[in-house]
Amino acid sequence: MGLSGGMDSATLLGFMLNEGAEVHCCHFQYGSKHNEYEKMAMLGLLAFYRYYQFPVYLHEFHLAEVFSKFNSNLLQSGGPIPEGHYKEESMKLTVVPGRNLIFSSIMAGLAESIGATVIALGVHSGDHAIYPDCRPEFIRSLNNTIFHSTDGKIMVNTPLLYEDKTTILKIGYNLKLPVPYHLTRTCYKDQELSCGKCGSCVERLEAFENIGKQDPIEYENER
Amino acid sequence: MGLSGGMDSATLLGFMLNEGAEVHCCHFQYGSKHNEYEKMAMLGLLAFYRYYQFPVYLHEFHLAEVFSKFNSNLLQSGGPIPEGHYKEESMKLTVVPGRNLIFSSIMAGLAESIGATVIALGVHSGDHAIYPDCRPEFIRSLNNTIFHSTDGKIMVNTPLLYEDKTTILKIGYNLKLPVPYHLTRTCYKDQELSCGKCGSCVERLEAFENIGKQDPIEYENER
Repeated sequence: MGLSGGMDSATLLGFMLNEGAEVHCCHFQYGSKHNEYEKMAMLGLLAFYRYYQFPVYLHEFHLAEVFSKFNSNLLQSGGPIPEGHYKEESMKLTVVPGRNLIFSSIMAGLAESIGATVIALGVHSGDHAIYPDCRPEFIRSLNNTIFHSTDGKIMVNTPLLYEDKTTILKIGYNLKLPVPYHLTRTCYKDQELSCGKCGSCVERLEAFENIGKQDPIEYENER
Repeated sequence: MGLSGGMDSATLLGFMLNEGAEVHCCHFQYGSKHNEYEKMAMLGLLAFYRYYQFPVYLHEFHLAEVFSKFNSNLLQSGGPIPEGHYKEESMKLTVVPGRNLIFSSIMAGLAESIGATVIALGVHSGDHAIYPDCRPEFIRSLNNTIFHSTDGKIMVNTPLLYEDKTTILKIGYNLKLPVPYHLTRTCYKDQELSCGKCGSCVERLEAFENIGKQDPIEYENER
Protein backbone atom coordinates (compact mmCIF):
# COMPACT_ATOMS: atom_id res chain seq x y z
CA MET A 1 0.00 0.00 0.00
CA GLY A 2 0.94 3.64 -0.39
CA LEU A 3 1.70 5.21 3.01
CA SER A 4 2.26 8.96 2.91
CA GLY A 5 1.93 9.70 6.61
CA GLY A 6 -1.41 11.48 6.21
CA MET A 7 -4.65 10.54 7.98
CA ASP A 8 -6.19 8.70 5.02
CA SER A 9 -3.35 6.27 4.39
CA ALA A 10 -2.86 5.91 8.17
CA THR A 11 -6.52 4.83 8.42
CA LEU A 12 -6.08 2.43 5.52
CA LEU A 13 -3.02 0.92 7.22
CA GLY A 14 -4.84 0.54 10.55
CA PHE A 15 -7.85 -0.95 8.78
CA MET A 16 -5.82 -3.55 6.90
CA LEU A 17 -3.68 -4.51 9.89
CA ASN A 18 -6.80 -4.91 12.03
CA GLU A 19 -8.12 -7.26 9.34
CA GLY A 20 -5.03 -9.44 9.75
CA ALA A 21 -3.16 -8.48 6.55
CA GLU A 22 0.61 -8.44 6.24
CA VAL A 23 1.25 -4.95 4.89
CA HIS A 24 4.15 -3.72 2.77
CA CYS A 25 4.08 0.08 2.95
CA CYS A 26 5.50 2.02 0.02
CA HIS A 27 6.57 5.56 0.83
CA PHE A 28 7.45 7.93 -1.98
CA GLN A 29 9.78 10.90 -1.69
CA TYR A 30 8.81 12.86 -4.79
CA GLY A 31 9.96 16.38 -4.05
CA SER A 32 6.74 17.71 -2.53
CA LYS A 33 7.08 20.64 -0.15
CA HIS A 34 5.81 18.57 2.79
CA ASN A 35 7.67 15.33 1.94
CA GLU A 36 10.16 15.55 4.80
CA TYR A 37 7.38 16.02 7.38
CA GLU A 38 5.25 13.31 5.80
CA LYS A 39 8.19 10.96 6.10
CA MET A 40 8.61 11.65 9.81
CA ALA A 41 4.89 10.98 10.32
CA MET A 42 5.09 7.79 8.25
CA LEU A 43 8.03 6.51 10.33
CA GLY A 44 6.12 7.30 13.51
CA LEU A 45 3.12 5.32 12.28
CA LEU A 46 5.30 2.34 11.41
CA ALA A 47 7.01 2.47 14.82
CA PHE A 48 3.57 2.54 16.47
CA TYR A 49 2.30 -0.56 14.65
CA ARG A 50 5.60 -2.40 15.05
CA TYR A 51 5.42 -1.76 18.80
CA TYR A 52 2.11 -3.62 18.74
CA GLN A 53 3.78 -6.42 16.76
CA PHE A 54 1.81 -5.96 13.54
CA PRO A 55 3.48 -7.29 10.36
CA VAL A 56 4.40 -4.02 8.61
CA TYR A 57 7.29 -3.54 6.19
CA LEU A 58 8.68 -0.40 4.58
CA HIS A 59 9.82 0.16 0.99
CA GLU A 60 11.01 3.68 0.22
CA PHE A 61 11.25 5.09 -3.28
CA HIS A 62 13.11 8.27 -4.26
CA LEU A 63 11.46 9.99 -7.19
CA ALA A 64 12.28 13.67 -6.62
CA GLU A 65 14.42 13.79 -9.78
CA VAL A 66 11.57 12.35 -11.89
CA PHE A 67 8.94 14.72 -10.50
CA SER A 68 11.27 17.73 -10.79
CA LYS A 69 10.37 17.69 -14.50
CA PHE A 70 6.64 18.04 -13.71
CA ASN A 71 4.57 21.15 -13.00
CA SER A 72 2.76 21.46 -9.67
CA ASN A 73 2.62 23.94 -6.82
CA LEU A 74 2.76 20.99 -4.42
CA LEU A 75 6.34 20.39 -5.52
CA GLN A 76 9.40 22.23 -4.29
CA SER A 77 9.94 23.29 -7.90
CA GLY A 78 6.46 24.92 -8.10
CA GLY A 79 4.72 28.08 -6.84
CA PRO A 80 3.14 28.64 -3.39
CA ILE A 81 0.54 26.35 -1.79
CA PRO A 82 -2.91 27.97 -2.10
CA GLU A 83 -4.97 28.62 1.06
CA GLY A 84 -8.72 28.10 1.39
CA HIS A 85 -11.08 25.16 1.05
CA TYR A 86 -9.90 21.81 -0.32
CA LYS A 87 -12.56 21.72 -3.03
CA GLU A 88 -11.88 25.21 -4.37
CA GLU A 89 -10.66 25.74 -7.93
CA SER A 90 -7.36 27.18 -6.63
CA MET A 91 -6.48 23.77 -5.19
CA LYS A 92 -6.01 22.51 -8.77
CA LEU A 93 -2.57 24.11 -8.56
CA THR A 94 -1.65 21.25 -6.20
CA VAL A 95 -2.47 18.48 -8.69
CA VAL A 96 0.73 16.51 -9.40
CA PRO A 97 0.62 15.05 -12.94
CA GLY A 98 0.66 11.26 -12.97
CA ARG A 99 1.22 10.91 -9.24
CA ASN A 100 -1.13 8.08 -8.28
CA LEU A 101 -0.53 6.33 -11.59
CA ILE A 102 3.25 6.39 -11.12
CA PHE A 103 3.02 5.34 -7.46
CA SER A 104 0.59 2.50 -8.28
CA SER A 105 2.71 1.30 -11.19
CA ILE A 106 5.76 1.02 -8.97
CA MET A 107 3.71 -0.71 -6.26
CA ALA A 108 2.44 -3.18 -8.86
CA GLY A 109 6.02 -3.93 -9.93
CA LEU A 110 7.08 -4.44 -6.32
CA ALA A 111 3.99 -6.54 -5.51
CA GLU A 112 4.74 -8.85 -8.42
CA SER A 113 8.37 -9.14 -7.29
CA ILE A 114 7.58 -10.00 -3.64
CA GLY A 115 4.51 -12.13 -4.36
CA ALA A 116 1.87 -9.75 -2.96
CA THR A 117 -1.56 -9.95 -4.60
CA VAL A 118 -3.24 -6.64 -3.73
CA ILE A 119 -2.11 -3.04 -3.85
CA ALA A 120 -4.09 -0.61 -1.74
CA LEU A 121 -4.51 3.16 -1.95
CA GLY A 122 -6.06 5.57 0.56
CA VAL A 123 -7.95 7.66 -2.01
CA HIS A 124 -11.31 8.99 -0.82
CA SER A 125 -14.32 11.00 -1.99
CA GLY A 126 -12.93 14.36 -0.80
CA ASP A 127 -10.24 14.02 -3.48
CA HIS A 128 -12.60 13.43 -6.40
CA ALA A 129 -13.41 17.04 -7.29
CA ILE A 130 -9.84 18.28 -7.75
CA TYR A 131 -7.66 15.21 -8.36
CA PRO A 132 -8.52 13.17 -11.47
CA ASP A 133 -6.24 10.34 -10.32
CA CYS A 134 -8.40 9.76 -7.22
CA ARG A 135 -11.77 9.35 -8.99
CA PRO A 136 -13.67 6.04 -9.18
CA GLU A 137 -13.43 5.89 -13.00
CA PHE A 138 -9.65 6.22 -12.77
CA ILE A 139 -9.37 3.59 -10.02
CA ARG A 140 -11.55 1.12 -11.95
CA SER A 141 -9.46 1.58 -15.07
CA LEU A 142 -6.21 1.38 -13.07
CA ASN A 143 -7.33 -1.93 -11.57
CA ASN A 144 -7.96 -3.28 -15.05
CA THR A 145 -4.62 -1.98 -16.38
CA ILE A 146 -2.63 -3.46 -13.49
CA PHE A 147 -4.49 -6.75 -13.90
CA HIS A 148 -3.32 -6.91 -17.53
CA SER A 149 0.18 -5.58 -16.78
CA THR A 150 0.77 -8.34 -14.24
CA ASP A 151 -0.92 -11.10 -16.22
CA GLY A 152 -3.77 -11.26 -13.73
CA LYS A 153 -1.65 -11.45 -10.57
CA ILE A 154 -2.39 -8.10 -8.87
CA MET A 155 -5.59 -6.26 -7.89
CA VAL A 156 -6.14 -2.69 -6.70
CA ASN A 157 -8.06 -2.20 -3.45
CA THR A 158 -9.37 1.20 -2.32
CA PRO A 159 -11.70 0.60 0.65
CA LEU A 160 -12.05 4.35 1.39
CA LEU A 161 -12.87 5.38 -2.21
CA TYR A 162 -16.44 6.48 -1.50
CA GLU A 163 -15.89 7.76 2.06
CA ASP A 164 -15.24 11.34 3.12
CA LYS A 165 -12.70 12.41 5.74
CA THR A 166 -15.36 12.49 8.49
CA THR A 167 -16.29 8.86 7.87
CA ILE A 168 -12.60 7.97 7.60
CA LEU A 169 -12.02 9.33 11.12
CA LYS A 170 -15.02 7.36 12.40
CA ILE A 171 -13.63 4.19 10.83
CA GLY A 172 -10.17 4.84 12.29
CA TYR A 173 -11.41 5.61 15.82
CA ASN A 174 -13.67 2.55 15.83
CA LEU A 175 -10.95 0.02 15.08
CA LYS A 176 -9.96 -2.34 17.89
CA LEU A 177 -6.63 -0.50 18.00
CA PRO A 178 -7.65 3.05 16.99
CA VAL A 179 -5.50 4.87 14.44
CA PRO A 180 -2.88 7.10 16.15
CA TYR A 181 -3.95 10.34 14.45
CA HIS A 182 -1.59 12.31 16.71
CA LEU A 183 1.25 10.79 14.60
CA THR A 184 -0.20 11.77 11.21
CA ARG A 185 0.61 14.81 9.06
CA THR A 186 -1.79 16.38 6.56
CA CYS A 187 -0.52 19.94 5.87
CA TYR A 188 0.85 20.68 2.38
CA LYS A 189 3.26 23.37 3.53
CA ASP A 190 7.01 23.21 4.00
CA GLN A 191 7.04 23.83 7.77
CA GLU A 192 7.17 21.75 10.92
CA LEU A 193 3.83 22.77 12.45
CA SER A 194 0.73 22.34 10.30
CA CYS A 195 -0.58 25.67 8.99
CA GLY A 196 -4.31 25.11 9.52
CA LYS A 197 -5.04 27.21 6.41
CA CYS A 198 -4.20 25.20 3.31
CA GLY A 199 -7.00 23.18 1.73
CA SER A 200 -5.65 19.98 3.16
CA CYS A 201 -5.55 21.31 6.76
CA VAL A 202 -9.01 22.93 6.42
CA GLU A 203 -10.57 19.64 5.30
CA ARG A 204 -8.91 17.75 8.15
CA LEU A 205 -10.03 20.26 10.80
CA GLU A 206 -13.60 20.15 9.45
CA ALA A 207 -13.62 16.36 9.76
CA PHE A 208 -12.50 16.47 13.40
CA GLU A 209 -15.14 19.12 14.11
CA ASN A 210 -17.77 16.90 12.47
CA ILE A 211 -17.01 14.00 14.81
CA GLY A 212 -16.84 16.30 17.84
CA LYS A 213 -13.18 15.65 18.66
CA GLN A 214 -10.15 17.89 18.98
CA ASP A 215 -7.51 17.23 16.33
CA PRO A 216 -4.60 15.82 18.40
CA ILE A 217 -1.85 17.47 16.34
CA GLU A 218 -0.52 20.95 17.01
CA TYR A 219 -1.21 23.85 14.62
CA GLU A 220 0.88 26.93 13.99
CA ASN A 221 -1.81 29.48 14.90
CA GLU A 222 -2.27 27.90 18.33
CA ARG A 223 1.13 29.12 19.47
CA MET B 1 7.54 8.63 -26.72
CA GLY B 2 9.71 5.96 -25.12
CA LEU B 3 13.04 5.65 -26.96
CA SER B 4 15.21 2.76 -25.81
CA GLY B 5 17.65 2.68 -28.70
CA GLY B 6 16.28 -0.59 -30.13
CA MET B 7 14.93 -1.07 -33.66
CA ASP B 8 11.23 -0.87 -32.69
CA SER B 9 11.35 2.49 -30.92
CA ALA B 10 13.79 3.77 -33.58
CA THR B 11 11.18 2.90 -36.23
CA LEU B 12 8.46 4.58 -34.20
CA LEU B 13 10.60 7.71 -33.90
CA GLY B 14 11.35 7.76 -37.64
CA PHE B 15 7.69 7.17 -38.45
CA MET B 16 6.46 10.01 -36.25
CA LEU B 17 9.13 12.48 -37.40
CA ASN B 18 8.35 11.66 -41.03
CA GLU B 19 4.71 12.45 -40.23
CA GLY B 20 5.75 15.91 -39.05
CA ALA B 21 5.40 15.44 -35.30
CA GLU B 22 7.51 17.24 -32.72
CA VAL B 23 8.81 14.36 -30.63
CA HIS B 24 9.90 14.36 -26.98
CA CYS B 25 11.88 11.17 -26.43
CA CYS B 26 11.91 9.67 -22.94
CA HIS B 27 14.83 7.39 -22.22
CA PHE B 28 14.83 5.29 -19.07
CA GLN B 29 17.90 4.02 -17.30
CA TYR B 30 16.40 1.28 -15.15
CA GLY B 31 19.31 -0.97 -14.33
CA SER B 32 18.96 -3.42 -17.21
CA LYS B 33 22.11 -5.25 -18.26
CA HIS B 34 22.11 -3.58 -21.68
CA ASN B 35 21.09 -0.10 -20.51
CA GLU B 36 24.47 1.51 -21.13
CA TYR B 37 24.60 0.23 -24.72
CA GLU B 38 20.97 1.15 -25.35
CA LYS B 39 21.76 4.67 -24.21
CA MET B 40 24.64 5.00 -26.66
CA ALA B 41 22.37 3.79 -29.46
CA MET B 42 19.63 6.19 -28.38
CA LEU B 43 22.04 9.14 -28.40
CA GLY B 44 23.24 8.13 -31.86
CA LEU B 45 19.66 8.06 -33.15
CA LEU B 46 18.96 11.51 -31.71
CA ALA B 47 22.16 12.89 -33.25
CA PHE B 48 21.11 11.45 -36.62
CA TYR B 49 17.67 13.06 -36.60
CA ARG B 50 19.00 16.34 -35.23
CA TYR B 51 21.52 16.44 -38.07
CA TYR B 52 18.53 16.33 -40.43
CA GLN B 53 16.91 19.15 -38.42
CA PHE B 54 13.98 17.15 -37.09
CA PRO B 55 12.36 18.51 -33.89
CA VAL B 56 13.49 15.87 -31.35
CA TYR B 57 13.99 16.45 -27.63
CA LEU B 58 15.43 14.18 -24.94
CA HIS B 59 14.19 13.60 -21.39
CA GLU B 60 16.21 11.09 -19.39
CA PHE B 61 14.93 9.34 -16.29
CA HIS B 62 17.04 7.40 -13.79
CA LEU B 63 15.09 4.56 -12.23
CA ALA B 64 17.79 1.99 -11.46
CA GLU B 65 17.20 2.34 -7.71
CA VAL B 66 13.44 1.73 -8.12
CA PHE B 67 13.89 -1.32 -10.35
CA SER B 68 16.64 -2.75 -8.12
CA LYS B 69 13.80 -3.88 -5.85
CA PHE B 70 12.18 -5.89 -8.66
CA ASN B 71 12.94 -9.42 -9.87
CA SER B 72 14.03 -9.95 -13.49
CA ASN B 73 16.95 -11.55 -15.29
CA LEU B 74 17.01 -8.54 -17.58
CA LEU B 75 18.22 -6.44 -14.66
CA GLN B 76 21.78 -6.22 -13.38
CA SER B 77 20.39 -7.54 -10.07
CA GLY B 78 18.98 -10.70 -11.74
CA GLY B 79 20.30 -13.99 -13.17
CA PRO B 80 21.73 -14.60 -16.68
CA ILE B 81 19.99 -13.67 -19.94
CA PRO B 82 18.51 -16.83 -21.52
CA GLU B 83 19.52 -17.79 -25.07
CA GLY B 84 17.18 -19.17 -27.73
CA HIS B 85 14.07 -17.94 -29.51
CA TYR B 86 12.27 -14.79 -28.38
CA LYS B 87 8.93 -16.56 -27.97
CA GLU B 88 10.27 -19.43 -25.85
CA GLU B 89 9.10 -19.97 -22.27
CA SER B 90 12.63 -19.27 -20.96
CA MET B 91 12.31 -15.65 -22.18
CA LYS B 92 9.79 -15.04 -19.38
CA LEU B 93 12.81 -14.63 -17.12
CA THR B 94 13.38 -11.31 -18.91
CA VAL B 95 9.97 -9.87 -18.04
CA VAL B 96 10.47 -6.74 -15.90
CA PRO B 97 7.50 -6.26 -13.55
CA GLY B 98 5.61 -3.05 -14.22
CA ARG B 99 8.07 -1.75 -16.80
CA ASN B 100 5.81 -0.37 -19.53
CA LEU B 101 3.26 0.77 -16.96
CA ILE B 102 5.87 2.72 -14.98
CA PHE B 103 7.46 4.20 -18.11
CA SER B 104 4.06 5.20 -19.52
CA SER B 105 2.95 6.72 -16.23
CA ILE B 106 6.03 8.91 -16.10
CA MET B 107 5.58 9.86 -19.76
CA ALA B 108 1.97 10.81 -19.03
CA GLY B 109 3.11 13.04 -16.16
CA LEU B 110 5.72 14.70 -18.37
CA ALA B 111 3.30 15.07 -21.29
CA GLU B 112 0.80 16.83 -19.06
CA SER B 113 3.55 19.12 -17.74
CA ILE B 114 4.89 20.13 -21.18
CA GLY B 115 1.51 20.26 -22.94
CA ALA B 116 1.95 17.20 -25.18
CA THR B 117 -1.23 15.33 -26.07
CA VAL B 118 -0.05 11.88 -27.14
CA ILE B 119 2.36 9.39 -25.65
CA ALA B 120 3.68 6.74 -28.02
CA LEU B 121 5.20 3.32 -27.38
CA GLY B 122 7.02 0.99 -29.80
CA VAL B 123 5.34 -2.22 -28.59
CA HIS B 124 4.69 -4.80 -31.33
CA SER B 125 3.15 -8.22 -31.88
CA GLY B 126 6.41 -10.12 -31.29
CA ASP B 127 6.23 -9.00 -27.66
CA HIS B 128 2.70 -10.25 -27.01
CA ALA B 129 3.47 -13.88 -26.14
CA ILE B 130 5.97 -13.23 -23.35
CA TYR B 131 5.38 -9.65 -22.13
CA PRO B 132 1.92 -8.98 -20.68
CA ASP B 133 2.60 -5.22 -20.69
CA CYS B 134 2.90 -5.21 -24.49
CA ARG B 135 -0.43 -6.90 -25.31
CA PRO B 136 -3.37 -5.10 -26.96
CA GLU B 137 -5.65 -5.59 -23.92
CA PHE B 138 -3.05 -3.93 -21.70
CA ILE B 139 -2.51 -1.06 -24.13
CA ARG B 140 -6.26 -0.43 -24.48
CA SER B 141 -6.68 -0.36 -20.72
CA LEU B 142 -3.59 1.81 -20.29
CA ASN B 143 -5.00 4.32 -22.75
CA ASN B 144 -8.20 4.49 -20.74
CA THR B 145 -6.35 4.81 -17.42
CA ILE B 146 -4.10 7.60 -18.69
CA PHE B 147 -7.13 9.37 -20.16
CA HIS B 148 -8.73 9.40 -16.69
CA SER B 149 -5.50 10.18 -14.85
CA THR B 150 -4.94 13.29 -16.96
CA ASP B 151 -8.58 14.40 -17.02
CA GLY B 152 -8.84 13.57 -20.73
CA LYS B 153 -5.71 15.40 -21.86
CA ILE B 154 -3.42 12.53 -22.96
CA MET B 155 -3.86 9.58 -25.33
CA VAL B 156 -1.67 6.52 -25.89
CA ASN B 157 -0.58 5.76 -29.46
CA THR B 158 1.04 2.46 -30.47
CA PRO B 159 1.14 2.37 -34.30
CA LEU B 160 3.25 -0.82 -34.36
CA LEU B 161 1.07 -2.80 -31.91
CA TYR B 162 -0.10 -5.39 -34.44
CA GLU B 163 3.06 -5.50 -36.57
CA ASP B 164 5.91 -8.00 -36.29
CA LYS B 165 9.59 -7.12 -36.54
CA THR B 166 9.70 -7.99 -40.25
CA THR B 167 6.92 -5.50 -41.05
CA ILE B 168 8.56 -2.96 -38.75
CA LEU B 169 11.76 -3.14 -40.82
CA LYS B 170 9.73 -2.73 -44.02
CA ILE B 171 8.02 0.35 -42.58
CA GLY B 172 11.35 1.81 -41.43
CA TYR B 173 13.15 1.23 -44.72
CA ASN B 174 10.25 2.65 -46.74
CA LEU B 175 10.18 6.01 -44.97
CA LYS B 176 11.33 9.05 -46.97
CA LEU B 177 14.34 9.18 -44.64
CA PRO B 178 14.87 5.49 -43.81
CA VAL B 179 15.53 4.54 -40.18
CA PRO B 180 19.29 4.30 -39.47
CA TYR B 181 19.23 0.70 -38.21
CA HIS B 182 23.03 0.67 -38.09
CA LEU B 183 22.71 2.94 -35.05
CA THR B 184 20.23 0.75 -33.13
CA ARG B 185 20.93 -1.82 -30.40
CA THR B 186 18.72 -4.83 -29.69
CA CYS B 187 20.83 -7.33 -27.69
CA TYR B 188 19.89 -7.94 -24.03
CA LYS B 189 23.43 -8.78 -22.91
CA ASP B 190 25.91 -6.65 -21.01
CA GLN B 191 28.56 -6.46 -23.74
CA GLU B 192 29.55 -4.03 -26.46
CA LEU B 193 28.96 -6.27 -29.49
CA SER B 194 25.52 -7.87 -29.85
CA CYS B 195 25.60 -11.59 -29.00
CA GLY B 196 23.37 -12.88 -31.81
CA LYS B 197 22.08 -15.62 -29.49
CA CYS B 198 19.68 -14.09 -26.97
CA GLY B 199 15.98 -14.12 -27.89
CA SER B 200 16.08 -10.46 -28.76
CA CYS B 201 19.02 -10.83 -31.20
CA VAL B 202 17.51 -13.98 -32.75
CA GLU B 203 14.23 -12.23 -33.50
CA ARG B 204 16.05 -9.25 -35.03
CA LEU B 205 18.25 -11.42 -37.25
CA GLU B 206 15.19 -13.38 -38.44
CA ALA B 207 13.48 -10.14 -39.42
CA PHE B 208 16.45 -8.96 -41.49
CA GLU B 209 16.61 -12.38 -43.16
CA ASN B 210 12.90 -12.14 -43.95
CA ILE B 211 13.33 -8.86 -45.81
CA GLY B 212 16.47 -10.13 -47.58
CA LYS B 213 18.86 -7.58 -46.11
CA GLN B 214 22.02 -7.89 -44.05
CA ASP B 215 21.67 -6.52 -40.50
CA PRO B 216 24.01 -3.49 -40.59
CA ILE B 217 25.23 -3.90 -36.99
CA GLU B 218 28.21 -6.04 -36.01
CA TYR B 219 27.77 -9.29 -34.06
CA GLU B 220 30.19 -10.97 -31.71
CA ASN B 221 30.38 -14.28 -33.58
CA GLU B 222 31.40 -12.55 -36.80
CA ARG B 223 34.80 -11.64 -35.39
